[in-house]
Amino acid sequence: MQNKVAIIGGGSWATANIKMLADNTTEKEIFWWMRNADAVEHIRQFKHNPNYLSSVEIKLPKENISTDLKYIISQAQFILLNVPAAFLKEALTGITAEDLKGKFIVSAIKGIVPDENQIIGEFLNQHYNIPFEHFLVLSGPCHAEEVALEKLSYLTIASGDPELAHWFAGLINTRYIQTIVSDDIYGTEWAAVLKNIYAVASGICHGIGYGDNFQAVLISNAIRELKRFVDAAHPIDRDIKESAYLGDLLVTAYSQFSRNRTFGNMIGKGYTVTSAQLEMNMIAEGYYAVNCLHQVNKQYKVNMPICEAVYAILYKKKAPTPQMQYLASQLS
Amino acid sequence: MQNKVAIIGGGSWATANIKMLADNTTEKEIFWWMRNADAVEHIRQFKHNPNYLSSVEIKLPKENISTDLKYIISQAQFILLNVPAAFLKEALTGITAEDLKGKFIVSAIKGIVPDENQIIGEFLNQHYNIPFEHFLVLSGPCHAEEVALEKLSYLTIASGDPELAHWFAGLINTRYIQTIVSDDIYGTEWAAVLKNIYAVASGICHGIGYGDNFQAVLISNAIRELKRFVDAAHPIDRDIKESAYLGDLLVTAYSQFSRNRTFGNMIGKGYTVTSAQLEMNMIAEGYYAVNCLHQVNKQYKVNMPICEAVYAILYKKKAPTPQMQYLASQLS
Repeated sequence: MQNKVAIIGGGSWATANIKMLADNTTEKEIFWWMRNADAVEHIRQFKHNPNYLSSVEIKLPKENISTDLKYIISQAQFILLNVPAAFLKEALTGITAEDLKGKFIVSAIKGIVPDENQIIGEFLNQHYNIPFEHFLVLSGPCHAEEVALEKLSYLTIASGDPELAHWFAGLINTRYIQTIVSDDIYGTEWAAVLKNIYAVASGICHGIGYGDNFQAVLISNAIRELKRFVDAAHPIDRDIKESAYLGDLLVTAYSQFSRNRTFGNMIGKGYTVTSAQLEMNMIAEGYYAVNCLHQVNKQYKVNMPICEAVYAILYKKKAPTPQMQYLASQLS
Repeated sequence: MQNKVAIIGGGSWATANIKMLADNTTEKEIFWWMRNADAVEHIRQFKHNPNYLSSVEIKLPKENISTDLKYIISQAQFILLNVPAAFLKEALTGITAEDLKGKFIVSAIKGIVPDENQIIGEFLNQHYNIPFEHFLVLSGPCHAEEVALEKLSYLTIASGDPELAHWFAGLINTRYIQTIVSDDIYGTEWAAVLKNIYAVASGICHGIGYGDNFQAVLISNAIRELKRFVDAAHPIDRDIKESAYLGDLLVTAYSQFSRNRTFGNMIGKGYTVTSAQLEMNMIAEGYYAVNCLHQVNKQYKVNMPICEAVYAILYKKKAPTPQMQYLASQLS
């Protein structure tokens, strides 16, 4: 096993991954790809990402940071994908199954591939022949901002091969990162996708004036809705109250750092989708996720009133207040 | 059935109960007892509680508010107990089983009776011969402050007699109060007790510098710990993710209104128990609850690392930081 890890993506979470990999003391080589040439030049020169988590010192050799994706991938054994799901296909343009053959692919993406409506593991399996024993999911509960602050955080690593998951855990755990290993790729990925939708719902409800009492009911309904869906999509024995599922939902729905909650809050306050996205200058994954989920759930037909309410508001232009009033009447 | 309800207690939650009973349109008579004669005089004269939720208009006839407990109890069919658990025995001094005979007792208390180490239903059953079919629990997730603001809230009413629970629900639901009925007295009471301990834990962790990532892990461990305990104390088939259990935990552990969280935060910041209680001028039920729980759990021997950590800090004077570091190593 070669401890050579490539991070694909230049955002907050990618920068946080770079930090934990660098702070972990296991000997390894780290590579970093991002599209933005100016950012690469800035990081090479000043050892800080100019756009995200700028407080983090980047301890990588200059030559390991590049805009050349094929080169970066060729150097590494572990390929950690960390671009928004909506841009994954575009980012991988020019990369073939051959380029990824024999490598271990770690998805830190929390989303569904648009049009395909597949979670990342399924997409890579079908389009790049990545076997599930070579695939890993890196999940929270974890805000990148708190990794920058070295606040104690627990990450879940799921894989079709638990030994591989343990190996990768050994590359990222540090005094402030604890790792939990799981074999539930589907559940971990879907939970990470759905929690963004619930965070949008939580933000919308906050924006239109619901209080903490209602939020508690919303989230305790959300975890039941999430369980119904993942049990339908991939029925195995899992405890939905574990950190990778409930914990990830809580950190996203309750935290000030959650961009999905912030996005929802703006929608609740009356912003249009376009103006909210522009104002935030960040992608709210939940916006894309709820559309994909709506399509995927045509197959499973799971009762998902919260996701349906968010879908109606964002895609059918329904007014938030009456839509959430209707939702409230369905909660228990 | 006589719709005559007496509220016993003069705090925030009692005042919120008065408001929802008065705003509910079912014909009824409401009585209110509190110890503080000055407060009774003030409310009779100005129709506002001078000490708690002072924004709420009290729509009761003057003569229905009194410091004479025996008289107030004699007038009503439903006796809604709403004093801190630590003061329940003292409050009921002079009241006999005969005084309560045939009446329906609603507990809005979230705590354990000290020394007896019993939840309210058990205590009333053993000491006042109240049958479980005459007993109801009124539970959250609900902060009194948000009732004052008429924010949509869901209350759970548990009883040994579901028809009775439905009847009482019909006396308190309003446009901002939804009611959920349950037959799980033990689970609802214990969840309301334990969530205060977890809110103290959450506050302590916040006070010593843990962030949102850790809180999410703490709370997802807390709900599993809570489930282990209630399943041991009263093993029936229940979904711990329902609002009365998980929702109540969330509203208490995550809300700015939670006095237990505030109390824990002060402990984490280095206040002594005494100075934190004095500063807050309110009872943090979790402080008493964790001691009782510690005693009760000697019988059940459930693995409860979070409660044990809080107990060690509050009662064995252990320093919060190393105690929570030890706890963190036990979480998953």
